[in-house]
This record gives sequence, C-alpha cells and structure tokens, in this order.
Amino acid sequence: MSSPLPVPEGTRITVCEVGPRDGFQNEKTFIPTAKKIEIANALFASGVTHMQVTSFVSPRAVPQLADAEEVLAGIDRPEGAWITALVPNLRGAERAAQCALDAVHTVVSASETHNRKNVNRPVDQSLAEFEAVIDRLHTAGIAVEGGIATAFGCPFEGIVPPEQVARIARRYQELGAESVSLGDTTGMATPLTVRAAIRAIREAAPGLDIHLHFHNTRGVGLACVMTGLAEGVTHFDAAVGGLGGCPFAAGATGNICTEDLVYLLQESGYSTGIELDRLIDAALLTQDTIGHALPGQVIKAGPRLKRHDPDQTLTAAG
Amino acid sequence: MSSPLPVPEGTRITVCEVGPRDGFQNEKTFIPTAKKIEIANALFASGVTHMQVTSFVSPRAVPQLADAEEVLAGIDRPEGAWITALVPNLRGAERAAQCALDAVHTVVSASETHNRKNVNRPVDQSLAEFEAVIDRLHTAGIAVEGGIATAFGCPFEGIVPPEQVARIARRYQELGAESVSLGDTTGMATPLTVRAAIRAIREAAPGLDIHLHFHNTRGVGLACVMTGLAEGVTHFDAAVGGLGGCPFAAGATGNICTEDLVYLLQESGYSTGIELDRLIDAALLTQDTIGHALPGQVIKAGPRLKRHDPDQTLTAAG
Repeated sequence: MSSPLPVPEGTRITVCEVGPRDGFQNEKTFIPTAKKIEIANALFASGVTHMQVTSFVSPRAVPQLADAEEVLAGIDRPEGAWITALVPNLRGAERAAQCALDAVHTVVSASETHNRKNVNRPVDQSLAEFEAVIDRLHTAGIAVEGGIATAFGCPFEGIVPPEQVARIARRYQELGAESVSLGDTTGMATPLTVRAAIRAIREAAPGLDIHLHFHNTRGVGLACVMTGLAEGVTHFDAAVGGLGGCPFAAGATGNICTEDLVYLLQESGYSTGIELDRLIDAALLTQDTIGHALPGQVIKAGPRLKRHDPDQTLTAAG
Repeated sequence: MSSPLPVPEGTRITVCEVGPRDGFQNEKTFIPTAKKIEIANALFASGVTHMQVTSFVSPRAVPQLADAEEVLAGIDRPEGAWITALVPNLRGAERAAQCALDAVHTVVSASETHNRKNVNRPVDQSLAEFEAVIDRLHTAGIAVEGGIATAFGCPFEGIVPPEQVARIARRYQELGAESVSLGDTTGMATPLTVRAAIRAIREAAPGLDIHLHFHNTRGVGLACVMTGLAEGVTHFDAAVGGLGGCPFAAGATGNICTEDLVYLLQESGYSTGIELDRLIDAALLTQDTIGHALPGQVIKAGPRLKRHDPDQTLTAAG
C-alpha cells in the first residue's frame, strides 16, 4: 500500500462550490434563474473559482435545474474559473457539450441497490455507458470528474467495500476520466471509511486525482476533511451555507458548509484564495433567496476574531 | 519542543459529559431536580463514567444550578465513575468538600478582560486564590482539574497567546492540580490554536494532563478533536445533544455534542466504553425535557449503518 503524506501547511486547497447543483436541487420552491446567477457571481466575487453550477438531468425529474443552459450562459467566469455540471447520461453530455464548461461530473453509485434506485441500471451498465459519454465530452474539450455516489456507505446495503469503490475508480481511469469524486451521498463517511477508500484507490488506480464530497448528516463532515488532508487530498466539495439535506434524515444537514470549510482550512494553515467575509455575504444572500435558515455556523457566529463589547452582559463562563 | 505522537488507534478515549453543567446553565426554564437526576442516570446507563454534574456557583447568579447538592446526592454512581463539579472560589470548595465528588473543575480565563467580566478580578488574583481552594479540596480527597477559559481566543481581546495559557497551566501544576482543561468558551478554537496551546503547555508544564473542552460555535469543534488526537490528547468534554449556546452568537451551537463525538471516536478506531444507541436515548430524553430542538446530528440521522427501505422514493443523488 502506498503511504500517503499529509498535505503540507501552506498548500493551496481547492474548494469546489456545489451548492448551486447539490443544494438547489433539494429546494422545493423554484429559484429564479437571475437569482441563481446572482448567487454564483457573489460566490465568484469572494474568490471561488471551482463551481458545480447545475445539472443536465431531465427537467421533469429535477425541475429546479431545468434552466441549466441559461444559468451557465449568464454567469461571470472569473479568472482561473473551473466550471462544472452534473451529467447523468449521453443526452446530458450532448447538452453539456454545447455549453462553456471546463469539466463534467458523471455519477454512478458504488452500491448496486442505490444505483438501481437512482438511475435504474446495474453499476456495470452505468460504467459501460460512460465510455460514449466521456468520449463525447473529451471531443468537446471538456474534462471528466467521475463521480462515485454512496462511496462511504449505502442507506440500503450498509457497508460499501473500499474494493468496490476502487474498482469503479480504476474503470473511470481506464475510460480517461481526469479525476474521481467520492460522494458521501447520505452522510455515512467517517475517518476510517475515508482513509480506506482513498488508500484502495491509490492502490488500484495510481495517479488518479481524488476529490472528496462530504455531507454533514452526522456532524463529522469537517472531521472527515481532516482525514482527507492527512491522506494527501487537496480538493473538497462544499455547499454555500450548508445547503442541501438528506432524504433519509429529517432535519439533518446536507453538504458540508463552504464558509465553515474555508474557515477550517485557513485556520489549519492552508490557503484557499477565498475571502471569508465576502463568502459570508454570498451565504447570507443565498439564505435570503431560499427563505429559510441554513445550517452553516460561521454565518451565525462570524469570523473568530470579531470583537465584542466588554460592557455586554455575560452568562456564566464555560 | 516536545514532539507529540498521535493517539494510537484502539486507545480508550475519555469522554467527559458536561451537559448537566455547561448545558443546563444556559437553559432559561428551571429543569426539575428529579429530571436532572434522571438524565444523568440515563447517561450513566449508556456507559458514560465521567460527568461534570453541576456547579457550586452562587444560586443567585445561576438559579438553574441551585440544586447542586441534591443532584449530586441523587445520582446513581456507576462503576468507574469520575464525578466532577465546577467550583469558582473557596465558598464553592467548602460546599464541594461535603459532596461525593472525585474531582472539581476550577475556572480562570486566559484573557484579563474575560476574567474581570466573569469573576471580577485579575487573572493572577484568581490564581492566587486557588491555592486555598486546591488545598481545601485535596484535604477532602478531591482532585482538581484546572479550567482555563478563553484558552483559544477571547471575544473581547481576540488572540490569546499560547504562552499565557501555558503560564496559567504551569501555575496550576505548581498548585498541585492533577490536570488542566482548555476551555473554548466562545468557540474560537481552531486546529492551529489547539496545537499551539497544547505544545506550549507541554513545554512549560511537562507531565501535566491536558483535557480539551470545545464548543461548536463555528462548526469546527470535531475537527479540533482530530487535532487534539493528533497531538496525543485522550480526554475531551462534550454535552449531550450539543446543549449550550454562545452569548455572542444567536443561533450558534454550544458545546460539541456527545453523541456526535462518540460516533466520531468510535468510527476513528477508538473506544469510549459508551453504547451509542443508549446515548442517543439519553439525548432524546434531554431534548424532551428541555422542550426545544438540540443541534446534535446523530440524534437526527441515527447511526450510519441504519438501513432504509429501498422502496422509499429518492430525490436526485449527490
């Protein structure tokens, strides 16, 4: 087994904003296209460069993202932009190929039951179909991030063996995907499952870039980021404000929160290129737009060195 | 500087439940004494052994904990129990000395402004007064955990130098305290401040046992636990359900949540002696008792391997 080194302090970590896709798709009320563009642009203004902006799924299945082309056409691409969108199949790839995209995120589940529930086909059939999808995207000059959903556990099957995750990653590599993204679809990632999946992929698909996509369903999303850093990973997804949710856990949180992640990374000695104050502004705009409270903590408490008036009344200290 | 080693996997980690003190004191409505005892006993039944049960502060200052003696007399001490209470001064120590306590938690702030706000005296005066407090407690056979509040930052002064934390720890050691507890009073701890404080104490007060008490005000409490483990710390405080709050951040969470911490530790290869299912039961009892939702995530989502019906309708995967 390769022995990964922790990411050295000072390293630039890539924070990929996925709220406009993974977060918005969970919102019941349609968010006007102009508002989606305004939020994306506010995020770019804070220094975000990597963003999964939308999804080329069926507009009937996910009406919230039916405006994929308009959103992509409307955003202001910042310098260094890396704009991605989710593509489930060849039809989605055809749509994506017409847009200004740097990369596309495909998705297959590591568990058979979840893949059948999600896309109604076996895992190996999904992978076989990706050959044409990836060829089509590469022809259009678009890179591919191979998404692996339920990579750390399946809500139906339970444990997902790391060897199964590694087998899919290896297949993605053979098909030419530039990276894989391990999706913590229902918040089952833990330090040990994260470490096991990363190490299994490094063994099966050496050189393949690994991205981590955690949900905070059980409160340990940022602890899993610490494990990812300890295993040498430098790319993490997050959603502004902690948008999203879990269909299996009422009241549980969704994706890890971008502001909380950026705060953690910067306070751990890494750089992100993102200004936290402006990111908080984008999160507050998002919260105002969707009209309900978001679970992010930094938007409530502010940066740590915000000063308070000593004349304020204190409750007992702890 | 000493070079700390990470805590080896398999190690037993001490989880000290502080909800009955640090959590309850933030609840406006008086919790009946019998309910406090019932919650403590439910926590013990899950395998919790270490608990900060109450506080010997002035009943006028904190009416919620005016029943300190009754609660301590009413709880069922489990095997291996390590029962503690907060003591601010000699008057509190006299009360504590009459109770069945294993240890007492004293408290001084690392920042001058916070200490004056909290106990109306300079830091050095607090430390000088602890000499009589600690002598009184040791005479009664009670150990002392020297609490250092605002150890990772002060809401009034901002940065707290690790040397100041180490100086107080060294003084506690000279006075005979068996351990120090670094309190993250308003949720300002980060991986770098945690590491710096631990290393400064190891340098200034070799051999002194270090306990960590994090709040999750900015979402990074469990990430700071990962740093603590990497620095060799084996004792962490937490509050059932994530009880507590922050007087400076409306809506922000309080102490790190015991169920989420136990889940993280067990899923990181450590043992805690606590049964997660029964701990969740105790958290739900606590939530019912106080009558409002608690921020813990595991109480909402359940343990990770809880299975779901594949016939349930799924929303789009992420």
